[in-house]
Amino acid sequence: MKITALEIAEKHNGTVEGDENILLTSLAKIQDAKKGSLSFLGHPKYNSFILSTKASAVLVSENFKIKNSEETTLIRVKDPYGTFNSLLIEKSNQKEKDNTGIHHTAIIDFSAEIASDVFIGPYVVIGAKTKIYSGVHIHSHCHIGSDINIGKDTLLHPRVSLMDKTEIGERCILNSGSIVGSEGFGFVKKNRENIKTPHLGKVIVKNDVEIGANTTIDRATLGATIIHDGVKLDNLVQIAHNVEIGSNTVIAAQSGIAGSTKIGENCLIGGQVGIIGHLVLGDNIQIQGQSGIINNIPNGTKIQGTPGFDFKSFYKSYALFKKFPDFESRLRKLEKK
Amino acid sequence: MKITALEIAEKHNGTVEGDENILLTSLAKIQDAKKGSLSFLGHPKYNSFILSTKASAVLVSENFKIKNSEETTLIRVKDPYGTFNSLLIEKSNQKEKDNTGIHHTAIIDFSAEIASDVFIGPYVVIGAKTKIYSGVHIHSHCHIGSDINIGKDTLLHPRVSLMDKTEIGERCILNSGSIVGSEGFGFVKKNRENIKTPHLGKVIVKNDVEIGANTTIDRATLGATIIHDGVKLDNLVQIAHNVEIGSNTVIAAQSGIAGSTKIGENCLIGGQVGIIGHLVLGDNIQIQGQSGIINNIPNGTKIQGTPGFDFKSFYKSYALFKKFPDFESRLRKLEKK
Amino acid sequence: MKITALEIAEKHNGTVEGDENILLTSLAKIQDAKKGSLSFLGHPKYNSFILSTKASAVLVSENFKIKNSEETTLIRVKDPYGTFNSLLIEKSNQKEKDNTGIHHTAIIDFSAEIASDVFIGPYVVIGAKTKIYSGVHIHSHCHIGSDINIGKDTLLHPRVSLMDKTEIGERCILNSGSIVGSEGFGFVKKNRENIKTPHLGKVIVKNDVEIGANTTIDRATLGATIIHDGVKLDNLVQIAHNVEIGSNTVIAAQSGIAGSTKIGENCLIGGQVGIIGHLVLGDNIQIQGQSGIINNIPNGTKIQGTPGFDFKSFYKSYALFKKFPDFESRLRKLEKK
Repeated sequence: MKITALEIAEKHNGTVEGDENILLTSLAKIQDAKKGSLSFLGHPKYNSFILSTKASAVLVSENFKIKNSEETTLIRVKDPYGTFNSLLIEKSNQKEKDNTGIHHTAIIDFSAEIASDVFIGPYVVIGAKTKIYSGVHIHSHCHIGSDINIGKDTLLHPRVSLMDKTEIGERCILNSGSIVGSEGFGFVKKNRENIKTPHLGKVIVKNDVEIGANTTIDRATLGATIIHDGVKLDNLVQIAHNVEIGSNTVIAAQSGIAGSTKIGENCLIGGQVGIIGHLVLGDNIQIQGQSGIINNIPNGTKIQGTPGFDFKSFYKSYALFKKFPDFESRLRKLEKK
Repeated sequence: MKITALEIAEKHNGTVEGDENILLTSLAKIQDAKKGSLSFLGHPKYNSFILSTKASAVLVSENFKIKNSEETTLIRVKDPYGTFNSLLIEKSNQKEKDNTGIHHTAIIDFSAEIASDVFIGPYVVIGAKTKIYSGVHIHSHCHIGSDINIGKDTLLHPRVSLMDKTEIGERCILNSGSIVGSEGFGFVKKNRENIKTPHLGKVIVKNDVEIGANTTIDRATLGATIIHDGVKLDNLVQIAHNVEIGSNTVIAAQSGIAGSTKIGENCLIGGQVGIIGHLVLGDNIQIQGQSGIINNIPNGTKIQGTPGFDFKSFYKSYALFKKFPDFESRLRKLEKK
Repeated sequence: MKITALEIAEKHNGTVEGDENILLTSLAKIQDAKKGSLSFLGHPKYNSFILSTKASAVLVSENFKIKNSEETTLIRVKDPYGTFNSLLIEKSNQKEKDNTGIHHTAIIDFSAEIASDVFIGPYVVIGAKTKIYSGVHIHSHCHIGSDINIGKDTLLHPRVSLMDKTEIGERCILNSGSIVGSEGFGFVKKNRENIKTPHLGKVIVKNDVEIGANTTIDRATLGATIIHDGVKLDNLVQIAHNVEIGSNTVIAAQSGIAGSTKIGENCLIGGQVGIIGHLVLGDNIQIQGQSGIINNIPNGTKIQGTPGFDFKSFYKSYALFKKFPDFESRLRKLEKK
């Protein structure tokens, strides 16, 4: 990266205080910045670093006040962190875009359709009738089965498995080790044996979805497991067969959703949450980490506990749970009277 | 698939009402069925779909009553879902069976013994003295170490790791990313350092076992970690060194069993359950999701909680836990008197 | 292995009772030992096996007393299990050391620097400017990105992913399926959408660290996620971006640490523990399995519960939790009076 303070200010509707022409060559946190770095102030508790930082320029808010005179150039913008983040995105996207071509060790079925400007890394395997659209990057050792679609500008890190018939939308990111379309976990009990329910369905992942490292998404029995636009799944998450997750819902690491449960839009689900099967959860729900959900949940509710219930009620009960021994002695005292 | 209603009825001891010769070319849920589909009615709440379904034929129970006259052909059988499931199994098995041969990029040690009717996919690696029996399917990028046995008709999805000396029985299914035989987690404390206990044992997986995506099974220190016949492990399950799991036990996603614990037969273990090491759990036990087990459990018990205890007692206590604030005010009232 | 009882005694400052020249060819637990096996007695509850074992020799403590005359040769040492463990380590290390060379299917960027005595297995991919030091073993299907360092004598099992810029120290062990340097999970909310925070940082893993099967460690936003000397991570553990874990801390399977949390030295963290982001945890902390940590923790504390608090207090409260129904009836009784 090579950009001046003025160029950043012009692009992001900002103003420069200090050396407009200073050349910025790296992005850094304010406490780690060096000469040439652009940094930012996003939270008041970091403000004092402005006096000691070695950053050549710092993004600050329009009304940020500074007491001492300063050597560092300031770039005033409306949203310093948002601006910094967009510069990070530009930098990381550029790196992927520079990288195209198909490695000679990739094994691609002759019936697959591959756009011309993709990257396909070493030892990738791509099955019959699969379609890879423009700008897709597939890194080493990925298994891409048959009858799969991967939409524009989607990025697969190394060692991803997409099982047959999976559909992946545009601008998705699949981290290393993630698996989309594994067999669902369903059985019919017959005497003592568990007879497998075959899973002939598939998984549909829509646009702008992110899937974490070693996360697993099972395909449907029949029909599809569906991950809607903008869903973000962290690492080691488990999504069972026939689950449906609404747009922009975020699920933190190691949470698991059992079969056929439907989750609404814009939910925030903490880490290590477990949700049993065949439930319906509304929109804008928040579930605290490690909670266990065994009932349907209406829109906009905040839940904690195993089994989970209203967040505030949980905390009231839990505060008293800690005081139990005290409770017990008060009760005993009364009984003696 | 191409089969008539009469052929299905004859094979499954059923009778046809309607067009015996109607040709069925796909399997579908009753609400999603199209012309040519065979569907089923397995639960009364779906009965009303019989009036609107586009399925060409529907499997129904012998005593299913229908009010209106109907265009759809009915196939009456004893167990509609069981029959449908066995058709699903046939269809999914057929697909694997059609697929044999050894890809020219598979690297197979000259001392390995490979049956003639197997499938070995691209970029598979197979070590010394390993034996692969008849009907085995090993998909792309699997690492199969040395001194391994894989029994008849077992299926390994892409990107499975079997470490040296692992034994896998017949008709098993290992989902993508699963790892059998990783190093156990054991240390000898020496001053502040943790000196590794090497794990020179192995893993024995018996017949008809299923192992979920990204599930991990550690090998024994000495001896073997053993997974008995018919065990079903969901995705992201952790089985530590020297664990033994009894026949037909089912363990849901993200549960973990610590070292040297023995679990009985026919148990049902929910998702995200944790079981500490060196325990003995009996047969026919049920453990609710997210429970934590720190004591031995007798046969036939149902457990919940962290630490876990009797399921019904847990629910009585938990119902009152929710009423704590009310409790506290009742106690205070009494104290005032 | 081929070693006499006398050779072991001499190497480990022990004495032999019985046949000094007996040849030992395998290591086994006392109950599983055969002719030629060396075994050990590490815990009094196994002492009775000394009378029936088929081991040719058994390591026992210096003051171990035996009543009956015995055919088995005894090797008296200060710490029988420690001695046995060091023999296990020798045996397992020897096997790896015997194994060197670079497989012709490994794809290694011309700018990578590879020491001469390493093992690099089939279908490994190694990126630009990566340095692999002496004695490193990298097994099949590993993805090693660019600008990576792997220190002396480190072992990577099959199917490990190291993303660009990762630093791995000396004598580390990475189990199969582990991922170091995956993208962190951070977003900036903009209207209803979650705008990705790119992660341009890296992961630094210091010396003598072990990483379990399918464990995931995310790279930092900027700067580094740091795993210090001697840390042991079990299988399916999740370490988020910018986390720092102090020396010799041990974390059991399926635990997860959220972004930017710092954990001290010599901590013991049980399985399935969840720790939220931006916390500071001290040294010598113990956290019981399945606990949920939402506050900073001072040195030397033992914690249980979700949310976690003092271990002993938790158990007092939990003991009373089980007696709730009894509690309730006592309270009702008092109210009636």
